[in-house]
Amino acid sequence: MTEQPDEYGVDSESTMDSERTVAELEDRWRRALADLDNLRKRYARELDRERADERGRVALAWLPVLDNLELALDHVQRDLSHDAGTLAQGLLAVRDQAIVVLSGLGYERYDETGVPFDPVRHEAVVARTEDKLPPGTVLEVLRAGYGDGKRQLRPAAVVVSAAPADQAE
Amino acid sequence: MTEQPDEYGVDSESTMDSERTVAELEDRWRRALADLDNLRKRYARELDRERADERGRVALAWLPVLDNLELALDHVQRDLSHDAGTLAQGLLAVRDQAIVVLSGLGYERYDETGVPFDPVRHEAVVARTEDKLPPGTVLEVLRAGYGDGKRQLRPAAVVVSAAPADQAE
Repeated sequence: MTEQPDEYGVDSESTMDSERTVAELEDRWRRALADLDNLRKRYARELDRERADERGRVALAWLPVLDNLELALDHVQRDLSHDAGTLAQGLLAVRDQAIVVLSGLGYERYDETGVPFDPVRHEAVVARTEDKLPPGTVLEVLRAGYGDGKRQLRPAAVVVSAAPADQAE
Repeated sequence: MTEQPDEYGVDSESTMDSERTVAELEDRWRRALADLDNLRKRYARELDRERADERGRVALAWLPVLDNLELALDHVQRDLSHDAGTLAQGLLAVRDQAIVVLSGLGYERYDETGVPFDPVRHEAVVARTEDKLPPGTVLEVLRAGYGDGKRQLRPAAVVVSAAPADQAE
């Protein structure tokens, strides 16, 4: 039932009875404080709900990946004569599906080698001396990274080139 | 730099100069309106950030599942003499890990049979006449459900019992 702030309006004409002016201003002020309080409470509830909605949305996006993993497993367990290669083929599709889910959430997969090491996108787990490439080049990706640098889910774990010892001295 | 609402305090003693009272009340009111406006803007930003944080948190929880799926695949592709049964064994662990992730997010898996059909938790995809069990009993779970009824991610797809035709008439 509270009015919008812009509808309150200010009218301090000297012809107005000053006691009425004071009472009215106090009333406006109190209503603004009540609005402030209600807004705080409403936003706290909204924040909880938005967080839960987002959690559900993301979890739901992953369910088909789990479903397909289970379908592949059921298939194998019903007929154990399948060779591992055939099963692996089916599971590559599940893997690709998971990568599409991540991309849809804004986390693109990357695993390029030969690019300069970027501390935001890469985590160097091993350094290897290498004289054909400049130091600080990604030589190998041990675990793919996800994100675009700005919205980073996980850096790629990489092997990075180091200058040979005689050059480093 | 705005004061907290409870610190404003109201002082309408008649000894105060009424013009000063009016000016002060107007000032308080305007500050309350400014607070209201700032609060609106701040929450809009927070909402975006909280949503993105939650998205990242949930996506990150799933990454180890994908990592382990890939490890299992690498393992097979390096040595295709593995039998499908061994691979399936490893993948069951990946499946279980995914179920733990979902449970950690608040979506418990369920696939009980013999329980009464619950339209919130179950989706009947097939009805089967069955005279040993009361109608509306879950006979088979075709796809597991996730959630606790209040926070439901996905209902279970089930086969439900129906009364034989002669009883239904």
